[in-house]
Amino acid sequence: MKTKQLSIFLENKSGRLTEVTEVLGAAGINLSAMSIADNSDFGILRCIVSDPDKAYQVLKEAHFAVKITDVIGFVCPNTSGSLAIVLKHLSQNGVFIEYMYSFANGDVATVVIRPTDLDACEKILSDKKVELMAANDLYQL
Amino acid sequence: MKTKQLSIFLENKSGRLTEVTEVLGAAGINLSAMSIADNSDFGILRCIVSDPDKAYQVLKEAHFAVKITDVIGFVCPNTSGSLAIVLKHLSQNGVFIEYMYSFANGDVATVVIRPTDLDACEKILSDKKVELMAANDLYQL
Amino acid sequence: MKTKQLSIFLENKSGRLTEVTEVLGAAGINLSAMSIADNSDFGILRCIVSDPDKAYQVLKEAHFAVKITDVIGFVCPNTSGSLAIVLKHLSQNGVFIEYMYSFANGDVATVVIRPTDLDACEKILSDKKVELMAANDLYQL
Amino acid sequence: MKTKQLSIFLENKSGRLTEVTEVLGAAGINLSAMSIADNSDFGILRCIVSDPDKAYQVLKEAHFAVKITDVIGFVCPNTSGSLAIVLKHLSQNGVFIEYMYSFANGDVATVVIRPTDLDACEKILSDKKVELMAANDLYQL
Repeated sequence: MKTKQLSIFLENKSGRLTEVTEVLGAAGINLSAMSIADNSDFGILRCIVSDPDKAYQVLKEAHFAVKITDVIGFVCPNTSGSLAIVLKHLSQNGVFIEYMYSFANGDVATVVIRPTDLDACEKILSDKKVELMAANDLYQL
Repeated sequence: MKTKQLSIFLENKSGRLTEVTEVLGAAGINLSAMSIADNSDFGILRCIVSDPDKAYQVLKEAHFAVKITDVIGFVCPNTSGSLAIVLKHLSQNGVFIEYMYSFANGDVATVVIRPTDLDACEKILSDKKVELMAANDLYQL
Repeated sequence: MKTKQLSIFLENKSGRLTEVTEVLGAAGINLSAMSIADNSDFGILRCIVSDPDKAYQVLKEAHFAVKITDVIGFVCPNTSGSLAIVLKHLSQNGVFIEYMYSFANGDVATVVIRPTDLDACEKILSDKKVELMAANDLYQL
Repeated sequence: MKTKQLSIFLENKSGRLTEVTEVLGAAGINLSAMSIADNSDFGILRCIVSDPDKAYQVLKEAHFAVKITDVIGFVCPNTSGSLAIVLKHLSQNGVFIEYMYSFANGDVATVVIRPTDLDACEKILSDKKVELMAANDLYQL
């Protein structure tokens, strides 16, 4: 199911990321998953947090450039080739991946993807019996 | 401890990622963690796999542009503010983060970072009693 | 008009760019325009060259990961606000910019854009009397 | 010589770039050179403008996330292999390129680079008789 991801602009790499984690920590907000898209001198922190709306608000108040994007979370078996099967279902149906981040944990892997078409992606995964994650489950990893 | 990360160039987003996962799956190699650094038309897949040297070889044979980079993995408590403390130790000692990716799981979060200085990063984390992950533990999440 | 742009993967920043320019130079190919999309550890060189097909071939032979993408070149007056007018025509008609690079030169600025829709972009610019550049004129700046 | 480059965060690609050019145009500021470093959903506009300090101020007032970075501009002959020679001088002396953008124009090409070491880069280019551009000349292309 659709899950809110925050994207936060990091003007530099020398402390700005620390500040984001401090602002979120001070507000009692937890980071469930994150990934940095980086340039030589900047970063964009993409993250799933325990309370996205509150996080958006406290980051705005702290003058961060931040926006909310919908992504999709799912779970797949942590065995070689499992993710390939899921991705093939998507690409064969014309849905491609803008970006993704994923971690395995024991028997399963948790995957966050930003597809080219959110609704089509959700339908394909559902039809193919891929275990979609509820937004709240992803917020509370 | 230093862990081998693979970086794989994805010339397009329409199937190239699927091919990587198929090549790795066919070789019995598992994906422990991954993150895509994306442009409008390309992606760079950064990943931790169960057998990085073998993965490098099979991807090269399949004509992917791939390289190996050292990163550092550590574990921190999955509570708000915990990551901020670790990052502050690093930035106060002049070590900054080029990029990172992380997922929480129950009581802990697993974090992969590419710092500006690998040796200094390892020493600071060790001095501050942050739980560094052995490379093999990260390869086998 | 549609112009061929080369995109070349630079696995590192310590000499790989130099190698590209040497391979092109040895083949007598000139660089008309270029821009690097960079990560912490990689780059993607996007460039317009005097002979894109030959450049593709010699770079492939030198084992570079390279692909060809269509872009659009146009000329606009080198006065404040001129580019804003062109971009507004595009965005008001639902065409957005994936990326662009541009240099002014005396009375005009030469602009290379990668729009979300190449055909629509070409039609809008043409309707609005923006001076589109012939591919050959861009190859031979 | 060192030249001020503006880097402006574009939260989306659907109009945000147009807004930047409108804000600059309304203030009578001209764009001399620009390049976008893009992600799937964001962009960073790097640009050289006619008045960087004023541009910084009006963009801040319009609530853009913006910062100023030093870059170096130089001119090299617009012949195949000329840029390779310059880049080789730099890489042989341990200076690498974070990113660059360049356009040819008749007999010469104008190049903007962000090197790993600004002072060393300036000294090497100067020793090798590469024609460095004065900041004001780059602001007023």
